[in-house]
Amino acid sequence: MPRYRLLVEYDGTPYCGWQRQANGPSVQGTIETAFLRLEGGPVTLKGAGRTDTGVHATGQVAHVDFPRDWSADKLRDALNAHLKPHPVAILEVAIVGEDFDARFSAKARHYLYRIVDRRAPLALEQNRAWHVRTRLDEVAMQAAAQVLIGHHDFTTFRSTHCQSKSPMKTLDRLDVTRIGDTVEIRASARSFLHNQVRSMVGTVKLVGEGKWDVARVVAALDARTREACGAVAPAAGLILTRVDY
Amino acid sequence: MPRYRLLVEYDGTPYCGWQRQANGPSVQGTIETAFLRLEGGPVTLKGAGRTDTGVHATGQVAHVDFPRDWSADKLRDALNAHLKPHPVAILEVAIVGEDFDARFSAKARHYLYRIVDRRAPLALEQNRAWHVRTRLDEVAMQAAAQVLIGHHDFTTFRSTHCQSKSPMKTLDRLDVTRIGDTVEIRASARSFLHNQVRSMVGTVKLVGEGKWDVARVVAALDARTREACGAVAPAAGLILTRVDY
Repeated sequence: MPRYRLLVEYDGTPYCGWQRQANGPSVQGTIETAFLRLEGGPVTLKGAGRTDTGVHATGQVAHVDFPRDWSADKLRDALNAHLKPHPVAILEVAIVGEDFDARFSAKARHYLYRIVDRRAPLALEQNRAWHVRTRLDEVAMQAAAQVLIGHHDFTTFRSTHCQSKSPMKTLDRLDVTRIGDTVEIRASARSFLHNQVRSMVGTVKLVGEGKWDVARVVAALDARTREACGAVAPAAGLILTRVDY
Repeated sequence: MPRYRLLVEYDGTPYCGWQRQANGPSVQGTIETAFLRLEGGPVTLKGAGRTDTGVHATGQVAHVDFPRDWSADKLRDALNAHLKPHPVAILEVAIVGEDFDARFSAKARHYLYRIVDRRAPLALEQNRAWHVRTRLDEVAMQAAAQVLIGHHDFTTFRSTHCQSKSPMKTLDRLDVTRIGDTVEIRASARSFLHNQVRSMVGTVKLVGEGKWDVARVVAALDARTREACGAVAPAAGLILTRVDY
């Protein structure tokens, strides 16, 4: 049975996250329902990153075994036709070997987190960014972010619901830059713990507000306890932008 | 009575346009309703540009006479509090002289039009861009756009509903650039005719598809008749980004 790799974009706002769940519509479930209309029988998708409720993607990757020998372009167009009007789009389809696994073959995952720091609420960016009403110091945030780079025990920045066996992860990149009223934070690692990016962003934002200094971020990392973490940043600001294989 | 200048951002999707109308909610009406809750009596807003149904703004400007001597910041915050949960935000308020008129004092208006040219439908950019399924030639589009620059009779690129007395306008800028899958078109002029930007974009897009050449754009402009115009580009791609005074 051919295996296909899908590159997926979605607006996470109406979904309970990537993963199929009993309590509401998921991105995975939405795409699996589109597959049902292709008369290839039920399929199960496996995604590279299980994004949470409200988290977006421009570069989620999934794989699926589909019992039809279709061209990649035919499958992409058929899925997109059946996905309407849901805010989920299949950007690319590729035929891959059966050793390809969207989750376990991934070599790096890249996220973008966007904060709009201005007094006025968000109109065009509602559900697309974190609105912070005070101006943040992005230079201080960048300095604080650098202390998290490297191989660490990230227990402090891990959801209590995280199912990963080990809290040890290697963070390759956490860069804070500003464009106008938008502070962009780019995070890259082979893999992340549950809520790790949003936990790190929430902590670095406290530095941007002047409430924490870099030493406190170091102490929070060293504490290896969830209580030491700043408030987790909201889901709406987070986008899974790319997965490398 | 003090006159205030408002800088306004909105998602145009749920509105029948800027201007108050009988047939549905407008941006102007939404802000005027917020004013009613401030106990300053009914007010009438006057905007710099009467954006159409579905057109967005990050830099619309309006003025209003409001019979309370409030600070600019107080008025901005009070309006934003009463505008929730509507996708309309007051970015700035300034106290101005009574000779300031948002429409007639404007020296230049700037629009951005965004086209995403890719096979897959739009998920995150639904209602935020024009989706064109074939790759456009942005270099050819830029060349075609330049023939429209200058002082011309723009009858070809004017809605039949346009109320402007004269079809003569001076187009200062029409620049086409690409960032990834997004073709951005920036248009600037002292003022535009009704549907002028979307009419020009629709025509330039035909050049990007290879259906028209530059000579045909010149002929369309010279024809001075609505029938010579390419199909008008959809509203969702258009954003009023700035008004200069």
